[in-house]
Amino acid sequence: MATTSSLQPPTRVLMGPGPSGANPRVLAAMTKPLLGHLDPDFLRVMDRCREMLRRVMVTENQVTLATPGTGTSGMEAGVMNVVEPGDRVVVGICGYFGERIAQMAERAGGVVTRVQSPWGEPVDAAAVEAAIRAAGKVKLLAIVHAETSTGAETPVEPFARIAREAGALLLVDCVTSLGGVPVRVDDWGADVVYSGTQKCLSAPPGAAPITLSARAWEAVRARETPVNTWYLDLGLLEAYWDERRVYHHTAPISMVYALHEALALVLEEGLEARWARHERNGRALQAGLEALGLTLHAQAGYRLPVLTTVRIPEGVEDAAVRGALLNRFGIEIGGGLGELRGRVWRIGLMGESSTAGNVLLLLNALGRLLREQGFPADIRAAVSAASERLRS
Amino acid sequence: MATTSSLQPPTRVLMGPGPSGANPRVLAAMTKPLLGHLDPDFLRVMDRCREMLRRVMVTENQVTLATPGTGTSGMEAGVMNVVEPGDRVVVGICGYFGERIAQMAERAGGVVTRVQSPWGEPVDAAAVEAAIRAAGKVKLLAIVHAETSTGAETPVEPFARIAREAGALLLVDCVTSLGGVPVRVDDWGADVVYSGTQKCLSAPPGAAPITLSARAWEAVRARETPVNTWYLDLGLLEAYWDERRVYHHTAPISMVYALHEALALVLEEGLEARWARHERNGRALQAGLEALGLTLHAQAGYRLPVLTTVRIPEGVEDAAVRGALLNRFGIEIGGGLGELRGRVWRIGLMGESSTAGNVLLLLNALGRLLREQGFPADIRAAVSAASERLRS
Repeated sequence: MATTSSLQPPTRVLMGPGPSGANPRVLAAMTKPLLGHLDPDFLRVMDRCREMLRRVMVTENQVTLATPGTGTSGMEAGVMNVVEPGDRVVVGICGYFGERIAQMAERAGGVVTRVQSPWGEPVDAAAVEAAIRAAGKVKLLAIVHAETSTGAETPVEPFARIAREAGALLLVDCVTSLGGVPVRVDDWGADVVYSGTQKCLSAPPGAAPITLSARAWEAVRARETPVNTWYLDLGLLEAYWDERRVYHHTAPISMVYALHEALALVLEEGLEARWARHERNGRALQAGLEALGLTLHAQAGYRLPVLTTVRIPEGVEDAAVRGALLNRFGIEIGGGLGELRGRVWRIGLMGESSTAGNVLLLLNALGRLLREQGFPADIRAAVSAASERLRS
Repeated sequence: MATTSSLQPPTRVLMGPGPSGANPRVLAAMTKPLLGHLDPDFLRVMDRCREMLRRVMVTENQVTLATPGTGTSGMEAGVMNVVEPGDRVVVGICGYFGERIAQMAERAGGVVTRVQSPWGEPVDAAAVEAAIRAAGKVKLLAIVHAETSTGAETPVEPFARIAREAGALLLVDCVTSLGGVPVRVDDWGADVVYSGTQKCLSAPPGAAPITLSARAWEAVRARETPVNTWYLDLGLLEAYWDERRVYHHTAPISMVYALHEALALVLEEGLEARWARHERNGRALQAGLEALGLTLHAQAGYRLPVLTTVRIPEGVEDAAVRGALLNRFGIEIGGGLGELRGRVWRIGLMGESSTAGNVLLLLNALGRLLREQGFPADIRAAVSAASERLRS
């Protein structure tokens, strides 16, 4: 009954919508000796994670922790802890993940108003404001900062003002933005903000940073009904993360080590420098893709540097190109999600994957494959346009 | 703003209620290159995990996967996917984790009957049978196979018969038993069985094996209301784990690698041999503790070999002994949980931590500390009693 393990994953250049590549220091952190989840040495690691999370999220919120699951667990914790049965919720939707928030809010018993924008545009603030006026007393306004399905960024400030004026809490999904584009929780005045580890923080998936403002925390504590989920009940999670140290779950020890190391790397690079790096590489990629002759999907002015959607030209086969990128070049990019399936590719430049080398590698490889499929991609122009941006 | 990482966890002998020590191969697996969650090479790893999970759980259930969270996420998935608002649920409780199941079932809207047994005894089958008769149509009967808070094992077979006769589904928590004591899902006729990775499977915490019988799956699919949780909705999880590969969450890639390697190690050792090893070491520890002059807490005949509860003698200080074990000997054991807080220690011998060396190490260290506190521990007798069992 002997089984020889066949775990030999190939090395990929991860340029999809996540996971991004991980720094060797982060992977090595996971091999450090396991500790018990109440070991004083482990609790110190948690405390340092918490402190670094606050710095990376630019917040002084007390309730700042990592939920024991992937990015979606952060979304579920954020939505389900705030929303009680009968609460009115307005969700600004401009892609797949906004719709997911709406579904979770409905499972929590919320009465949800969806405000739709075309996929590729930001959420429409005027339409959201009108919807909130129409809905009456709204408990929660939710938006996605960086919509991973479309590559569009929704500026947060207008929604913070709308929420404040309506007396609603503001939830902002920063799964794809944290550590790559500016996220300033306290300056925004956002109340519930969560992220994932496997995007611009460049750790493996498996933990979800989340932070709650004092006023959001008050709302959670004032609930009249228990939270739908026990596993992601923030009251129970916070009692473990704060000095009470009440047992709730066995923390994912190795993932917390990885998060610790990833956050240390972010702070060593510096937030401003890291944002600038993502901006530079993202704009270079986008200039290169346009010079190849392709059309960017997200609305100009709202394009995320960390995730670019580009339209698949007519006559070019989606699966064939992505398959060849993976098999011949070892590069992963993402296909379209939801209504953009088959219509766009999603190219990530997140965290460790956001490098000048990856920009040029991708433009060359994609250009060659497009030419093989009969599309007259101008590789030289693409490399030239990208290089110019990379030097800036 | 430079931060030098200070992640230097000490090496511990993990003999608490979990996490247990991890095999170096498992830790090394987590440093393998990250893959995208839809990469064909990663999907093959998932398929192999699934196949190995079936072998380790001794089941042919189609729906067999690992939820993206720690053991408690398995419990939440198991309970919340089956229980709908208004469903009658009977939970046999003989410790902390049975009560947790009951709380989750209530959050799912279930009408819960708790059948309590003293902490340290198994669940009382006759009392459960009577409660089911009294409750009318019961949807779910739930028990904990290996109660981590008390060290008592509840034999599953009687409850399988009771559930079958009542037309109820049987949920069995095997967080602490899987990979250490016999778990035979199909032979039992259990319908929902889940576990964790950080106990007898000896991987870091962060994934939870779960399996559902065809009849449990039918019940999940026949739900009239959506599951309380979106993150742990088994309908969505299965659509990603089966050949449909519908995106739900970004799998915790490195944790799946760790699980893969841990399962391979279990199968290389062989289930029967692994169970025998846990049995031998556990009985040796228990004989040794009694020879030290201590009293085992769990009822004779129902003591788990993988987790032993021992009463703290009068006059001996709980925290001082555990602190000294940790700081002077590098050994972690667990304190009591819930109503056993301050009354027992919990000593785990799980997975990689279940070794003859650890048995002898613990008896010597604990014996010395007890003597320092004035308790006349007979270390020589303890070592002798344990050694005799270890040779058998």
